[in-house]
Amino acid sequence: MRIMPAQQFSITREVEYGSPEQNESVQRIIKRVREEGDAALRAYAKEFDGIQVGELRVTQEELNDAYAKVDAVFLEAIREAAANIRSFHEKQKRNSWVDMQPDGTVLGQVIRPLKRIGIYVPGGKAAYPSSVLMNAIPAQVAGVPEIVMVTPPATAGEEGVNPYILVAAAEVGIREIYRVGGAQAVAALAYGTESIAPVDKIVGPGNIYVALAKRSVFGAVDIDSIAGPSEIVVLADETADPAYVAADLLSQAEHDEMASAVLVTTSERLAGEVQAEVARQLEELPRKAIAAQSIRDYGAILTVGSLSEGIDVVNRLAPEHLELMIAEPWNSIGLIENAGAIFLGPYSSEPVGDYFAGPNHILPTNGTARFSSPLNVDDFLKKSSVISYSKQALLANGRKIVALAEHEGLQGHARAIQVRLDKEGN
Amino acid sequence: MRIMPAQQFSITREVEYGSPEQNESVQRIIKRVREEGDAALRAYAKEFDGIQVGELRVTQEELNDAYAKVDAVFLEAIREAAANIRSFHEKQKRNSWVDMQPDGTVLGQVIRPLKRIGIYVPGGKAAYPSSVLMNAIPAQVAGVPEIVMVTPPATAGEEGVNPYILVAAAEVGIREIYRVGGAQAVAALAYGTESIAPVDKIVGPGNIYVALAKRSVFGAVDIDSIAGPSEIVVLADETADPAYVAADLLSQAEHDEMASAVLVTTSERLAGEVQAEVARQLEELPRKAIAAQSIRDYGAILTVGSLSEGIDVVNRLAPEHLELMIAEPWNSIGLIENAGAIFLGPYSSEPVGDYFAGPNHILPTNGTARFSSPLNVDDFLKKSSVISYSKQALLANGRKIVALAEHEGLQGHARAIQVRLDKEGN
Repeated sequence: MRIMPAQQFSITREVEYGSPEQNESVQRIIKRVREEGDAALRAYAKEFDGIQVGELRVTQEELNDAYAKVDAVFLEAIREAAANIRSFHEKQKRNSWVDMQPDGTVLGQVIRPLKRIGIYVPGGKAAYPSSVLMNAIPAQVAGVPEIVMVTPPATAGEEGVNPYILVAAAEVGIREIYRVGGAQAVAALAYGTESIAPVDKIVGPGNIYVALAKRSVFGAVDIDSIAGPSEIVVLADETADPAYVAADLLSQAEHDEMASAVLVTTSERLAGEVQAEVARQLEELPRKAIAAQSIRDYGAILTVGSLSEGIDVVNRLAPEHLELMIAEPWNSIGLIENAGAIFLGPYSSEPVGDYFAGPNHILPTNGTARFSSPLNVDDFLKKSSVISYSKQALLANGRKIVALAEHEGLQGHARAIQVRLDKEGN
Repeated sequence: MRIMPAQQFSITREVEYGSPEQNESVQRIIKRVREEGDAALRAYAKEFDGIQVGELRVTQEELNDAYAKVDAVFLEAIREAAANIRSFHEKQKRNSWVDMQPDGTVLGQVIRPLKRIGIYVPGGKAAYPSSVLMNAIPAQVAGVPEIVMVTPPATAGEEGVNPYILVAAAEVGIREIYRVGGAQAVAALAYGTESIAPVDKIVGPGNIYVALAKRSVFGAVDIDSIAGPSEIVVLADETADPAYVAADLLSQAEHDEMASAVLVTTSERLAGEVQAEVARQLEELPRKAIAAQSIRDYGAILTVGSLSEGIDVVNRLAPEHLELMIAEPWNSIGLIENAGAIFLGPYSSEPVGDYFAGPNHILPTNGTARFSSPLNVDDFLKKSSVISYSKQALLANGRKIVALAEHEGLQGHARAIQVRLDKEGN
C-alpha cells in the first residue's frame, strides 16, 4: 500500500456511461419488453442466462422451501438486523403539516408514500440478503403499500433463486418476487408486462446493463442513484490500533477491484504499521486477488501534518464510508462536510454498519456524498403543496399577482386573478 | 375544448430524450468546455447567439443599473413574494438528530446543506424573475453558502441580461452571475472553467440542449428533475364558477403548445358552460395562438359520474397543478394521491401559487407527481449517517455480524469484527 502526500491523491473515478454497444443493447431490450412483455422476459432468460423460465413469479411453496435451506444462526441474525434497521428508519418519519394564516389562508405540505416500488437484487455472487433489508425496510417505514422484488435465477441452468435472498425478502414481508434480471427486469418494472404491474420507483444495484437501463427509464419512473465503486477513508491518529485500521481497509477492498481504501493519518508511525498489517492480513483473505488489486490501484496511505489538514482531505475525497479512529471523534464530526456514513471510534468497524447497527448500507459512492445521502425514508415519500387562499388574501394581494404575471408577459395568468377581483372585489 | 369520457384521456407525453444529433452536439459541447474552459464559452456565445461576450461575470454596476430599469410596483411585489416564499420554506427546515442507546451506542443522521449550487435561468421570452426566487430561496433556507446563477445574454447582438432577472437575483442576495447559457453553461457549472468554479448541484429549467446536458452531467453533480411540459387539472362540481374554471385552464394553456389543461367535472351543465367560457376568453388572450393549440391538442373536459370517480381520474393523471373547485375541498384532500400542488376553493387560482403565496412553483410535471415533489428545502440538504458503536454493543453482537458477513462470502468483513472480538472479547 503506497504511502504518499495527500494532495496527489483522488478517489473519484469517471462515471460509467457504458459503451455505445451496451447502450444500444439496453435500448433494444427495453423496446422489446415494452412490445412483447412476458415473452421477451422469457426469451432473454434463455438467451443471456441459458435458463428456461416457466412461472415468472416465485411461489409461496418456494418461499417455504427456502426457509428449510437456511440455518438458524443466519435467521436469528437477520431478524435482529431487520429490527435494528427498522428502528433507525422509524426515527426518520415525517408528518404532513399546515400553516394557518390570520387572513384565513392555509398553506402546507402533504407528505405521502409512493404507491408501488421495485427492488432489483443482483444474482450470483453479488446476491446480498442484507441489501434486501436495506432497500425494503425504508420503503416499508415510509408506508409504501406495494413492494415487489426482481432477481435473476441463481445459476445458469437452474430456475431457483438464492434461498438466503428469498428468506430475507419473506422476513420483511415481500411476497411479490419475480425471477427476472438484467435490463429486461428494469424495463418490466418501469413499463409493466402481463405478469408484472409497473412501479413508481426502482431501487437496488446491478451490473452495467442494469445501471444503463435505470438511467434510461428515469423520468417514466424514479430511480435511486446509480451505484458506483465503493470506498472507505479511515482518518486516524496515533491512538488508533493498526490491526483494526488494516482490517477495516481490507473489508472495503475485498468488495471489488475498483473499490478504494484510504488511510489519512497524522502519525508516520501508524502509516508504517498499517502498511505492514495490510500486507500481513491480505495474505489470509479468501478474496485476496480482488483486495490486492483494489489496494494497488485505488488504495493509499496519506500522511498529513495535522488533524485539521486530514479533515480537509476527507472533505475533498467525500468518501462513502468514513471512520474516525482519533482520540476525540465527536469533537471533529461537526467539521466533516462530505461523507455517506461516519463511524466513530475503535468499535465502529464498517461491517457493523453494513449489516447490523441500523443505518442504511446503501450510501453515496465515488465522491457523490458532496450532494447525495444514504438511502432513507424520504426516498420513498413524495410531497404535494397545499394552497387554500382566502377571499380576503386574494383581494389584498391580487393586484400584486397581476403585476408580476404581466411583467412576465403571461396575460392569461393575470386574467385568472383579474376575473376574480372584478367579480368579488371593491 | 372537447368534452369526452374520462377513461379515454391521458396527459402523459413521451419523455423527451432528444435526437441523436442533439445528443451528439451536447456531448461535443461538454467535451470542449472541459478542455477549453472560458474560451469555449465565448466561442459558443458567438456561434449560437451571435454575441461577443467580454466579461463573463455580471458586474455590480450592471446590477445597480438594473434597478434603475424596473418599476416600483414590480419591486414591491417581488419583495413581498420573496418574503412569502421564504416563510413557507422556513417551515421545512430539519435538524440533525441522534439516538442514544442504553449500551452506549449512538446512532443518528447529520443533515447539512450542499456547499455550492448553480441555477440555470433561461433567457429571452422564457426569462421569469419568479423562477429565480423559487430556485434560490429554498437553497438559501437550506443554508447553501454559495449560490451562482447562469443566464444567456438577453438578445442577440447585446451583452446585457434581462434587468428583471438581475433584480430578482439581487433581491435574494445572488451576487455571482455569469452571462452564459445552453449546454455550455451546464458543462461549466458541472466541471468548472477558469472563471466559474464547479458546483455540487444544478437546478432550473432550459431548452432541450440544457435538459440533455443536465441529464449527461448527472452523477458528476446532482440535478433537479428534468422539467417537462406543464399541466393543470381542475376538479369541479356544480358549485364552481365557470368563468374562474375557464380562466385558470387558460392560464396554464398559454404557457406553451405542449401544456395540458383539463377539467374533470361531475356537472354536465358546468362542462358546457366552461366549454363556452374557454372559447370566449380565448379570444381575448394575447397568447391566443399558443393557448388554442394547447387546448386543442392536450386539453379536455372529462365528465364523471361521481366525485369519487373524479378523484380516481385525478390520481391516474397525477397532475402538476390540481385545483379542487368543489363544495368541500378539505373533505377530499386525503384521497388525492398524486398531485404536485393542490389548490383548494374558488380563490386559490393557480397564479396565486405561481407567483405569490409561498409554496414553490417548480413542480413535478408529466405524471411524475406519482413519485416526485415540488422543489423544496430537502433538495439542497444531504444526510450523513452516524454510527458510534460501543465496546459493549460490539461484544454482544459481533458474532451475529460475523455470521452475516460469512453468509455473503465476505471474509474480510467478518475478520474486521473478529480481530476486535479476539482482542477485546472474553
